[in-house]
Amino acid sequence: MRAIEPIPESMRAAVVYAYDGAPESLRVETRPVPRPERGQVLVKMVAAPINPSDLMFLKGLYGVLKPLPVVPGWEGMGRVVATGDDGLSRLLLGKRVACAAPNQQDGTWAEYMLTSATRCVPLRDTVSDEQGATLIVNPLTAWALMDIVRNNRQRAFVQTAAASAVGRMLVRLSQHFRIEGVHIVRSEAQAELIRAMDARYVLNSESPDFDQRLRDLCHQLHARLAFEAVSGMLSARVLKAMPQGSRLILYGALSESPLMADPRDLIFEQKRIEGFWLADWLSRRTLWSQLRLSRQIQRALGNLMHTTIAGKYPLSEVHRALADYQASMTAGKRLLVMH
Amino acid sequence: MRAIEPIPESMRAAVVYAYDGAPESLRVETRPVPRPERGQVLVKMVAAPINPSDLMFLKGLYGVLKPLPVVPGWEGMGRVVATGDDGLSRLLLGKRVACAAPNQQDGTWAEYMLTSATRCVPLRDTVSDEQGATLIVNPLTAWALMDIVRNNRQRAFVQTAAASAVGRMLVRLSQHFRIEGVHIVRSEAQAELIRAMDARYVLNSESPDFDQRLRDLCHQLHARLAFEAVSGMLSARVLKAMPQGSRLILYGALSESPLMADPRDLIFEQKRIEGFWLADWLSRRTLWSQLRLSRQIQRALGNLMHTTIAGKYPLSEVHRALADYQASMTAGKRLLVMH
Repeated sequence: MRAIEPIPESMRAAVVYAYDGAPESLRVETRPVPRPERGQVLVKMVAAPINPSDLMFLKGLYGVLKPLPVVPGWEGMGRVVATGDDGLSRLLLGKRVACAAPNQQDGTWAEYMLTSATRCVPLRDTVSDEQGATLIVNPLTAWALMDIVRNNRQRAFVQTAAASAVGRMLVRLSQHFRIEGVHIVRSEAQAELIRAMDARYVLNSESPDFDQRLRDLCHQLHARLAFEAVSGMLSARVLKAMPQGSRLILYGALSESPLMADPRDLIFEQKRIEGFWLADWLSRRTLWSQLRLSRQIQRALGNLMHTTIAGKYPLSEVHRALADYQASMTAGKRLLVMH
Repeated sequence: MRAIEPIPESMRAAVVYAYDGAPESLRVETRPVPRPERGQVLVKMVAAPINPSDLMFLKGLYGVLKPLPVVPGWEGMGRVVATGDDGLSRLLLGKRVACAAPNQQDGTWAEYMLTSATRCVPLRDTVSDEQGATLIVNPLTAWALMDIVRNNRQRAFVQTAAASAVGRMLVRLSQHFRIEGVHIVRSEAQAELIRAMDARYVLNSESPDFDQRLRDLCHQLHARLAFEAVSGMLSARVLKAMPQGSRLILYGALSESPLMADPRDLIFEQKRIEGFWLADWLSRRTLWSQLRLSRQIQRALGNLMHTTIAGKYPLSEVHRALADYQASMTAGKRLLVMH
């Protein structure tokens, strides 16, 4: 191990003891600071956000179940203070990085996190700690979804949860690439928020003429691709509104309900349903293309990829941060601040 | 028009007045016999079956809604007694044919039906009236589904509603092509029926260890393709049991419930859901390949593609035929006999 500063023996960390989403199953405790081995880096965490995927993870609904007890948190930023002292990890020593948690071990909601060097992205000086902490999950998801639109040569798409962090990035990206987006939200307040971004087509799923207007727009714009993050009945309504041969891509399940679909849309209208998972999408790209992507996204963090931060909380107040986020996800990300 | 026998002015026909599935919305009436024009043939119907797609049609759940009132019935057999006297239709004059109803006009549950010559298949002498009447919908569906297995180079598949007419054909076709099938039924009686066909893997969805056994089998056999005809929760259970990257193909909705799926299977396991509709599949084939197919299937009607006929009813007893079919679809097809 090579370090740039003394590494303490212990740290504070949030630790989850059961996948039931109960506040008492998540405790802030003292834990030993791990030591990096070959290919690993030790990140002294500065900040880590709460994302919808973290909420799913705490409830055991995420695609990955780590052995318990475990530190949650899928992304964050900090400084690499120690490394296994081999090739790639040595290059990162002392660097400010955005970092993703390892697949099976402790995550980012702690004062220190051990991860592999390949899960770190060096940050440019122009990127703030706040934006760096949310660099990976949301901007990459939005970028990947827009990539699907462009690779399929579509001129229009539909998205639900348009007021979410990813949703708002998709609004800006679609304007940037001159692709028409039909943006679905679930309240008038959210609709106002998206309209204020100069979005042309904003629909509120709670309004009585929603289904008819969505159908008309999808057919008029030939929108054959939908990014759906809510699941439940909304999946069925979006699928029904789209033209024959359309694809619905589920990338979240904010309603925590099973996806529903009318069999007739699948059988007689040749519509299809699939899913999107960032980890899977990234694993199919080369390290080189991932690096190029992270540079593109860092350049765009000031505008296209900007994340709204609604509040910062010390790690000891993780429960209040979670409660505030769940009470109003649209307001913006909540950051846990460690150092 | 050219005819081989006198065509009467009127005929008896079943006529549907509302898409509500109510017995009183289906009446047996006297209607004028239509006259063929260019490209059309008049078939003097001998027999027509009741299929699940007919039940869906009567309830307005089918992919096609014809203008009402209309004669239902999607397939049947009879003799071409009059034609528009042009190219293809002239060749069919006097021939025994299996025939499909036109897309927007009256169907097969009548003494005469007008359809286009391209929707008729001349029958070999070795094919009985009974088997000829059920030549199109079920055998072609089973053949098409097996085609999907083979074109995707799969060595195993899963199917639900395995005791249905299509399901039993899939059991025999999979044995013929040496492909492993996991056959799902919903009662022990149906399971016995399929086991009696020497099927190796038969599961009853009502048994308590169904989900675990299905999961074990799908993983052991690498079954990544499912043909699902029930919808509702069964879709979700089958999708969950299959390995990562699997496809569920919905081709029916016997439960008349919305399809359900766990978002995690779509997002984290890259599983996909799509539909299959025979009409769509056929429209993507040339007339020549359709003819070749009908020859292959007629040769196989005696064994692989044999349909069990559970009863014959005069057209005037269409309501009793429908009631008997819905009471026990597994027993076999019910035929309406016109002449």
